[in-house]
Amino acid sequence: MYRQPDFSHPRFQNAPDARFQAAPADGVLPEGFFSTTNLPTYVRVGGEWKLPRDPRMDSALVLDPDNVPRVLEGRYVRRGQMVAMGFAEDGAEGIYVHASGLMGDPDMGPEGEFKFMSSEVSREKPTDYPEMARILVDERERGGHFIWVVGPAVLHSRGRDTLAWFVNNGYVGVLFGGNAVAVHDIEAATMGTTLGMNGRGVPVEGGHAFHMRAINRVRAAGSIRAAVEQGIIETGIMHALVTSGVPYVLTGSIRDDGPLPDTITDVVAGQEAMKVHTRRATGVIMIATALHSIATGNMLPSYVYREDTGEVRPLTTICVDSSEFVVSKLKDRGTHQAFGVITNAQDFLHVLRHYVEIEAASRQPAAVA
Amino acid sequence: MYRQPDFSHPRFQNAPDARFQAAPADGVLPEGFFSTTNLPTYVRVGGEWKLPRDPRMDSALVLDPDNVPRVLEGRYVRRGQMVAMGFAEDGAEGIYVHASGLMGDPDMGPEGEFKFMSSEVSREKPTDYPEMARILVDERERGGHFIWVVGPAVLHSRGRDTLAWFVNNGYVGVLFGGNAVAVHDIEAATMGTTLGMNGRGVPVEGGHAFHMRAINRVRAAGSIRAAVEQGIIETGIMHALVTSGVPYVLTGSIRDDGPLPDTITDVVAGQEAMKVHTRRATGVIMIATALHSIATGNMLPSYVYREDTGEVRPLTTICVDSSEFVVSKLKDRGTHQAFGVITNAQDFLHVLRHYVEIEAASRQPAAVA
Amino acid sequence: MYRQPDFSHPRFQNAPDARFQAAPADGVLPEGFFSTTNLPTYVRVGGEWKLPRDPRMDSALVLDPDNVPRVLEGRYVRRGQMVAMGFAEDGAEGIYVHASGLMGDPDMGPEGEFKFMSSEVSREKPTDYPEMARILVDERERGGHFIWVVGPAVLHSRGRDTLAWFVNNGYVGVLFGGNAVAVHDIEAATMGTTLGMNGRGVPVEGGHAFHMRAINRVRAAGSIRAAVEQGIIETGIMHALVTSGVPYVLTGSIRDDGPLPDTITDVVAGQEAMKVHTRRATGVIMIATALHSIATGNMLPSYVYREDTGEVRPLTTICVDSSEFVVSKLKDRGTHQAFGVITNAQDFLHVLRHYVEIEAASRQPAAVA
Amino acid sequence: MYRQPDFSHPRFQNAPDARFQAAPADGVLPEGFFSTTNLPTYVRVGGEWKLPRDPRMDSALVLDPDNVPRVLEGRYVRRGQMVAMGFAEDGAEGIYVHASGLMGDPDMGPEGEFKFMSSEVSREKPTDYPEMARILVDERERGGHFIWVVGPAVLHSRGRDTLAWFVNNGYVGVLFGGNAVAVHDIEAATMGTTLGMNGRGVPVEGGHAFHMRAINRVRAAGSIRAAVEQGIIETGIMHALVTSGVPYVLTGSIRDDGPLPDTITDVVAGQEAMKVHTRRATGVIMIATALHSIATGNMLPSYVYREDTGEVRPLTTICVDSSEFVVSKLKDRGTHQAFGVITNAQDFLHVLRHYVEIEAASRQPAAVA
Repeated sequence: MYRQPDFSHPRFQNAPDARFQAAPADGVLPEGFFSTTNLPTYVRVGGEWKLPRDPRMDSALVLDPDNVPRVLEGRYVRRGQMVAMGFAEDGAEGIYVHASGLMGDPDMGPEGEFKFMSSEVSREKPTDYPEMARILVDERERGGHFIWVVGPAVLHSRGRDTLAWFVNNGYVGVLFGGNAVAVHDIEAATMGTTLGMNGRGVPVEGGHAFHMRAINRVRAAGSIRAAVEQGIIETGIMHALVTSGVPYVLTGSIRDDGPLPDTITDVVAGQEAMKVHTRRATGVIMIATALHSIATGNMLPSYVYREDTGEVRPLTTICVDSSEFVVSKLKDRGTHQAFGVITNAQDFLHVLRHYVEIEAASRQPAAVA
Repeated sequence: MYRQPDFSHPRFQNAPDARFQAAPADGVLPEGFFSTTNLPTYVRVGGEWKLPRDPRMDSALVLDPDNVPRVLEGRYVRRGQMVAMGFAEDGAEGIYVHASGLMGDPDMGPEGEFKFMSSEVSREKPTDYPEMARILVDERERGGHFIWVVGPAVLHSRGRDTLAWFVNNGYVGVLFGGNAVAVHDIEAATMGTTLGMNGRGVPVEGGHAFHMRAINRVRAAGSIRAAVEQGIIETGIMHALVTSGVPYVLTGSIRDDGPLPDTITDVVAGQEAMKVHTRRATGVIMIATALHSIATGNMLPSYVYREDTGEVRPLTTICVDSSEFVVSKLKDRGTHQAFGVITNAQDFLHVLRHYVEIEAASRQPAAVA
Repeated sequence: MYRQPDFSHPRFQNAPDARFQAAPADGVLPEGFFSTTNLPTYVRVGGEWKLPRDPRMDSALVLDPDNVPRVLEGRYVRRGQMVAMGFAEDGAEGIYVHASGLMGDPDMGPEGEFKFMSSEVSREKPTDYPEMARILVDERERGGHFIWVVGPAVLHSRGRDTLAWFVNNGYVGVLFGGNAVAVHDIEAATMGTTLGMNGRGVPVEGGHAFHMRAINRVRAAGSIRAAVEQGIIETGIMHALVTSGVPYVLTGSIRDDGPLPDTITDVVAGQEAMKVHTRRATGVIMIATALHSIATGNMLPSYVYREDTGEVRPLTTICVDSSEFVVSKLKDRGTHQAFGVITNAQDFLHVLRHYVEIEAASRQPAAVA
Repeated sequence: MYRQPDFSHPRFQNAPDARFQAAPADGVLPEGFFSTTNLPTYVRVGGEWKLPRDPRMDSALVLDPDNVPRVLEGRYVRRGQMVAMGFAEDGAEGIYVHASGLMGDPDMGPEGEFKFMSSEVSREKPTDYPEMARILVDERERGGHFIWVVGPAVLHSRGRDTLAWFVNNGYVGVLFGGNAVAVHDIEAATMGTTLGMNGRGVPVEGGHAFHMRAINRVRAAGSIRAAVEQGIIETGIMHALVTSGVPYVLTGSIRDDGPLPDTITDVVAGQEAMKVHTRRATGVIMIATALHSIATGNMLPSYVYREDTGEVRPLTTICVDSSEFVVSKLKDRGTHQAFGVITNAQDFLHVLRHYVEIEAASRQPAAVA
């Protein structure tokens, strides 16, 4: 189960002994100390590669009187005690971290460098908004077809305005969603609430039925477009899509109320309507909807292929959800080149717009004097 | 188990029959239709209160040929079919939703109005940033003592700068946190990484040990203050606290590396150091740390009491976490008047600063011409 | 914002002073000590109701030399120090917890008793398996119609066998699910994997396509029933349903592969097929599927109504998910009388069967000697 | 960004053309069809390697009239249409999935086989209870030192009894936990509640203070051992530990109430007490406590090293939590050879005991006739 390193290999034969340096004070290590991992770590002492006593991570290496190394927390090192030095984990400085010796260690890089935080999706990782902004502006400039897949959580007050801004400014190639996202957007446009709550999240009287009243008005008008044209819908995402001429595909789910006349209730027909767009997609951004995101992910290749030029490049994917589970699941489904962002949909859109505005402004040609 | 309504009560005796109106088109309800809930709902027809057939929520009420009401999805209503009208659920318009008849319904308001989204913490609720900004600016103006409790997730690139901004601009009365938040802030100041990752979330070579190198430098300097004064720490949250003279309490946990010289390793002594501040707190904001947030919540009263004036008012609490579980748990611990925000720490700080700047600017006296 | 108690009320006028007793040792409180909450708490001393200094929860009440009460952690109480006694929080023993004084405290019971853990869904609450088992056996005995709504997470090895056991033993009135739950059940029956993994969770070679091969075989057979009759499907949930004559409704979603010939792809038609069963449901158990659970919850009333006898009783609902969010959301949708269980689907079924077997055995008539 | 395959390589030069077979019916594929992934997939037709049109996963490959392959969902294939056959993705049967062409694809195996569900921790993966049971029984037989790290969620009614069973039957080498796990265990022993709730999860009157009364009794007795010896604690985990002579280490946290006299309040001293056991650990099982699990994980090597024999083997780690986040985080901290189990603590213990009893019974020598 454990594979010993082959110390007859020249890289080990030619390695020096580990270098040691005295600690400058009690509980203080010399700058450049070797910091341990929890993996089997061989220290070369007197030409011999030895495993240390008391192994653990985030600690220093000292020598016991019998010349066997020992792992010791920095706080217990005494002034003048000799401490192993160096950064290399490949044996070149006399210390070798043998990551590959334990089977099935997927978190190791080549040559066994130990890495923290190697799982790819985590609320504790920074989000590279400037890079996402750069991609969105690039795609707009070169006429890409970016798919936005959104769930109802984008709708609360400012999120809805911000998404309409992205539509109106040319960043949305097509919008995919369910019946609910349109229903609650139109509820906001016609009744002033989302999910029966006002903009501060407080339920209003009778609010539980407001989405049903919104649906009924669109059914009476005949379609979302007709409701926009008749002045029933004057704000929001669906309004922005209709007035900007950006297409949308609303597909049904078994939990739908209504549905709206525009919602495609047959799921196979719905996939066909989506396919018109997934075929020519150059990127996708999926926000706060596991169902529609996975549906879209299932239909998208991991790459963009131009048959005329033969060019192949990765398809950009941005997944946003409050939960690591959903974002990881999208990766499990085989969606690569993903930005995984663990955050609130409304905050995501707010911050993304901020960076997109900066990026777009930076590309404006200077005005002529 | 089910309590029948007492229809001998005058409010029921004096109620009219339910009013019906013809549907204007197939699948379209008349404006002002009654929208059902899933609760027992009595409809007064010919002077009698009757339960409908096929009860379900989000639907309309029609009459069967035998004058018994039936619940019917709007999409199945035919043109001219008579549909029950009204918004009142208390019987005043001939329809009574009997919420209290089923025991143990905590989600019902008085008189049984049905409410959606009644649980208080959800990623699907809007966040009232303007109100939080107003409170923070108010507290700064009146010299309140606002406690900020923060976990390491605030530290990634922009989150760290933004929190330093709040410190430098007088919004932080005291900062509570663990060893880790200071360690990773100082890792960023000295090594340029957080948790071994660069600003784009990519692990750097040797990065797993960078926080240990940061700790060692502070141990060598003697304290965080000393490290700031010696120029070892030139940016970040701890730097802002030291240079602004804002106090901080770092308390130890069993998972700590190092620790830093400033970290109070005895938890009872740590609670005493926190108590100096909880005693005079006027508000608390807790971001991305269950442990320290619950510790602080345990020590805080739900109110502010001024012994001199006898005034009592609720203590403002803002809890921010990626997970409903943590925020709900804080409420379970008995922390009231909470704003529960389900989002990413970095995005939260970014958006909150945006609204605080707007609020603070709105209070500037106009410049004299 | 804060409502003072009305101490002129007889219940306060007639109350005694708080009773104090000496601490038996340093850091030890007398048995029967009053334990504080974080709410405004008035202590009657010398006929006066006074708020204590240093309020916090989970602590004791002592008297300062000026006869003002002070909240003090038990560990700081000294031997012989006088400590307030009693359990009553309504003033009857001279201590009054004024819960209702702070607006909007939904967690307070009548008379303001403070309660821990009042939010209803939490992984930290015990699960009442014996009670659920009792209900399931009751329903089987009286011929109820219990709806089981299940997601693919029930399928892994033992979960699948256990669910088939519930079908075969008469506990399932109808099964609702999506295309995926049947696909992966049939993948297990025909290919020996679920989601391409073997029973130990290890992906097998070529496994990513096994569910597509399973779908294709059922399409070739013509239906699930035909595939069972032709011996293509010999184990599992769908096999148990077909051979036991228990109905099922498989409804489509936009993310479906295939789909299977039995899957109803039009969501409005799917709701109609479900309605046949929701109309006569006496209970529902929803396991590991937000989509289908919410769909079912939307269609179910909160009660069972027998038109012939006029009887109304609550409809039993059991919701099982790994995440508090989903279970809470079902409650937000208005599903009451719910058992909310936060656990793994497979473990839930295993433990539930254990208790159902005990319950069913306890009802067997004793064998005659 | 995209690396073309090198089709001059012999493996490609010597490969056959892809093989095609007629579909047996409309919407039905021939058994043995090639099932697509979302990765660049080259099909050899007439000696040329070609990328198909309309790439997506979980579909079939057909030929367009111009001999360019096209990806087509199985449901659209017509009877007699020629469909690409085979399972090999390495080109050996004329189809090559070029996984490594897109940078940074960590989910690919060698030679680019596409894998579903490659992330290691998920509520949707089966749990290998029989294997965990085998390891626990093995460890007991060979005198291993298994560390159990537990949080308060293990305590609810049946979880507490089951954990005491593991202690009494020799499966626990040492128990690590916080003050809270002992407090609530002793609350159950002395007051009959956990977190103020009875066994059915219902808060009892005055229950919010029951844990404080439990702490006070142990403080009065002097220690947990003394409280057991004085008959104050007669059931539960701490009782089992004391009466079985199994050691435990309770370490403090900043959120503790009390604390109990046995709780080590200094976290550095706490780590030292844990180190006595981590040094000789042969395995660890961590249930429902992020804090103590990470603390333990930080101190444990990933391997067991016997200095006398020089043997090295992986250290078994079992992590149990309701949330993927915590279990993944433990892996991020560098804990390998982990079983990650996403479930409820009480259910986990119930099911694990079931399998351990089966495993232990299977090893009994047969009784002599």
